[in-house]
Amino acid sequence: MATKEKRIIDITELALRDAHQSLIATRMGIEDMTGACSDLDEAGYWSIECWGGATYDACIRYLNEDPWERLRTFRKLMPKTPLQMLLRGQNLLGYRHYQDEVVERFCMKSAENGIDVFRIFDALNDLRNIETSVKAVRKAGGHAQGTISYTVSPIHTTALFVDQARRLQDMGVDSICIKDMAAIIKPRAAYDLVKGIKEACGPEMRLHLHVHATTGVTMVSLMKAVEAGIDCVDTAISSMSLGPGHNPTESFIEMLEGTGFDTKVSMERILRVKSHFARIIGRYKEFLSQVTGAETEIFKSQIPGGMLSNMESQLRQQGAGDRLMEVLEEIPVVRKDTGYVPLVTPSSQIVGTQAVLNVLMGRYKVLTGEFSDLMLGYYGEGPGAKNREVVTLAREHTRKEEITCRPADLLKPEWDKLRSEALSLSGCNGTDEDVLTYAMFPQVAPKFFAQRHEGPLNLGTDPATGSSEIHPAEGHQGVITGPITYAVTLSGMQHKVTVAPFNPAVS
Amino acid sequence: MATKEKRIIDITELALRDAHQSLIATRMGIEDMTGACSDLDEAGYWSIECWGGATYDACIRYLNEDPWERLRTFRKLMPKTPLQMLLRGQNLLGYRHYQDEVVERFCMKSAENGIDVFRIFDALNDLRNIETSVKAVRKAGGHAQGTISYTVSPIHTTALFVDQARRLQDMGVDSICIKDMAAIIKPRAAYDLVKGIKEACGPEMRLHLHVHATTGVTMVSLMKAVEAGIDCVDTAISSMSLGPGHNPTESFIEMLEGTGFDTKVSMERILRVKSHFARIIGRYKEFLSQVTGAETEIFKSQIPGGMLSNMESQLRQQGAGDRLMEVLEEIPVVRKDTGYVPLVTPSSQIVGTQAVLNVLMGRYKVLTGEFSDLMLGYYGEGPGAKNREVVTLAREHTRKEEITCRPADLLKPEWDKLRSEALSLSGCNGTDEDVLTYAMFPQVAPKFFAQRHEGPLNLGTDPATGSSEIHPAEGHQGVITGPITYAVTLSGMQHKVTVAPFNPAVS
Repeated sequence: MATKEKRIIDITELALRDAHQSLIATRMGIEDMTGACSDLDEAGYWSIECWGGATYDACIRYLNEDPWERLRTFRKLMPKTPLQMLLRGQNLLGYRHYQDEVVERFCMKSAENGIDVFRIFDALNDLRNIETSVKAVRKAGGHAQGTISYTVSPIHTTALFVDQARRLQDMGVDSICIKDMAAIIKPRAAYDLVKGIKEACGPEMRLHLHVHATTGVTMVSLMKAVEAGIDCVDTAISSMSLGPGHNPTESFIEMLEGTGFDTKVSMERILRVKSHFARIIGRYKEFLSQVTGAETEIFKSQIPGGMLSNMESQLRQQGAGDRLMEVLEEIPVVRKDTGYVPLVTPSSQIVGTQAVLNVLMGRYKVLTGEFSDLMLGYYGEGPGAKNREVVTLAREHTRKEEITCRPADLLKPEWDKLRSEALSLSGCNGTDEDVLTYAMFPQVAPKFFAQRHEGPLNLGTDPATGSSEIHPAEGHQGVITGPITYAVTLSGMQHKVTVAPFNPAVS
Repeated sequence: MATKEKRIIDITELALRDAHQSLIATRMGIEDMTGACSDLDEAGYWSIECWGGATYDACIRYLNEDPWERLRTFRKLMPKTPLQMLLRGQNLLGYRHYQDEVVERFCMKSAENGIDVFRIFDALNDLRNIETSVKAVRKAGGHAQGTISYTVSPIHTTALFVDQARRLQDMGVDSICIKDMAAIIKPRAAYDLVKGIKEACGPEMRLHLHVHATTGVTMVSLMKAVEAGIDCVDTAISSMSLGPGHNPTESFIEMLEGTGFDTKVSMERILRVKSHFARIIGRYKEFLSQVTGAETEIFKSQIPGGMLSNMESQLRQQGAGDRLMEVLEEIPVVRKDTGYVPLVTPSSQIVGTQAVLNVLMGRYKVLTGEFSDLMLGYYGEGPGAKNREVVTLAREHTRKEEITCRPADLLKPEWDKLRSEALSLSGCNGTDEDVLTYAMFPQVAPKFFAQRHEGPLNLGTDPATGSSEIHPAEGHQGVITGPITYAVTLSGMQHKVTVAPFNPAVS
């Protein structure tokens, strides 16, 4: 029997970025990744996502690791495979809009340090917020991937998304990604959307699909996307997969057997990657997401994988760990009031935090500044109509006016100011890279610059000897840093005593 | 737009049998199930699997619980929905062949006590081993489901399985099940097999598909089976799903949205079932399977997760813990010599143990009695040609002849003897049910009969108060319950002090 030639489906491996962001709160240190790089590079992936998202933040906040140095390490250890990052458009990797020159410099520096593929998205799908980065990436010789933040709402029809894809094409992107951060794209929807975009934009426009595994249906959505003409899918090596993470790479490859589709990824290579991370992941148990099975309630709440664990810990810190279900029910209410924004960084945090406040304090009794800004247009324009009463509350609360222009148009040139502020910090090395670190994380950068010379930390613990006394229970993500007060009875008398963890080294 | 009527896909819920057998070594006690029964019964499942497999064994061996009483409890609490059991044909729920009268009495008593649907399989797919039970079930008014033990080998073609389905139909089964216990049925294979059987047996012959989730591909196989015409699929409620277990029920239902298929299961009801078991499962942490992610290596070895850990411990006991890879390579050799038997209880254990011996002692230098019996036909006839040299060795080793008849034809009537032996045991209540317990588990039954009056045990532990020394670290959800030793400095002097958490209520 003659075998028809199989269509090759490309794969982007997520292990080094979104997988550990979703599963262990982005805490993996570089030295736990380097051992896998050679096999990753030789495996035949279309790209390896390894930077952006929360990794930059986690590097300087928790790991005392220079994110630019991490990127250069990846580039050196993986010379063959395109390296990919996730970029929040005009927000870069920070949590506000930046003036265009800052955006341009960031894209140029990222390309210079090793990034090939820039996946650029805006939480509100306001394309004005990604245009500057798309242009800057193309100018820097990078691959600019325009992104559709997928969501489900009464207004988010297939036609709306297909129109967005066409506008991305007009903008000049090199490829388009459907980004389903909450695992809510069902098989039929995936099929229709991929088909619709391919028909509208033509077969030459590369189309990628990013899904999480949380709801248990998206492996089927990947199959349907393949049948509908997808060019590339995102998966994570099995030992770093499932739960709030992604579908397992090996399973995706095995699934295609006997179909008209195949991949170019070497199973032998990636089984070594699997073994590597199977050994590593146990060291990060204390950061491990408690979501392990499938959570179909997300179809209602639409909370993305990375965020659910954050919200759980927010609630626990407030002593309200038992009210997660109420918050999950409040989120759709808040989201509707925003005009159905997709829930992805930063809108997911903004809507999620507001929902937490609504549950704890009463609905809209307290507004966060960020939520007010969202309602007033300072994050851009969403696709739907906002609740005007809540807009009024936001205006009263902030004494700011509602805007309709591109938010970054309100910003004055800021690079020189950021640069001089950064250079005045102890430990700043004077590079544009350091200025960008300061620009995106002004609160964290000073401490990081000052401590950088001490070298990266590793937050993993040996699961065999793992000091359960130093890292007990939960809540504090792993390390007790502050003293704790206990009731101690000594010789029959109770004392209120404040103690620090027992350190055998000094005992 | 006119909506075409959707085809209804039925669901069998596995929470009460295979789910906890796969995830927590069958240890769940009846009182942790009763709270879910009302919602399960009202949900609209085609059937609820709740008995058979290892549940009977676990009841009397670990839980001091009468399995017949458990069944009657289910029947009482779930009067509307058909109750389903898994039956190993002529082996019943034991580990040898039983004479026909014992088989007939077991089927009759199971139907009397509440079972509606009997899923009947044979490890070798020797239909002579299931014929007696199929007849007995139909005589008792039950639904007899004939089963194909799915496996992958050079001789197990779609045509071979379709032929088996036709022979099951000729035998008079009420429905047919494809049973994929190792999670190795890939989407394309599932599609072809379902299509093939439906075409061969006609649309009126109900077809069910049982899959595990272990390899991460079988949710897609379920979708393909649906597209190919499957009538009913097996799933488990999400809080009791995935890993070595099954695909989540809620995800299966959600997955069908927008397709031409639907189910009759109430999401509202089963989300309550989910919550119930989400609370319960934490109490059985110490029995929880260590397999959690996807394991695609099973496609090559075909060794189910449970068997792998058994084999590792067998090897370690022989001081040969480092030779697992050799054993994994020996298994396909041994399996080929048997004529490619499917690897499922008891053939998986028999082949695995022989492979261990081959590695440790030299190939076929030592034969187990069970392996010899398998080679000589005492478990029935497999589909492939056996290695005649190994058959000769087995004959020499056991001084038994090769047989070609149905193994149970060699058995003399044994009911009366079993009955008088059982009745002589202290605590035996004289019922046929007790005789059957003794017949299937002669080693365990005496102790169980003697202790039954003490009532069921619950092996779960309260994760909040559960002794942290027995269940340390990650087990308890965040509450420090046991005392902890700290270094406390009081007036400049360091003391080693053991303290309990500060409790404001008593301060």
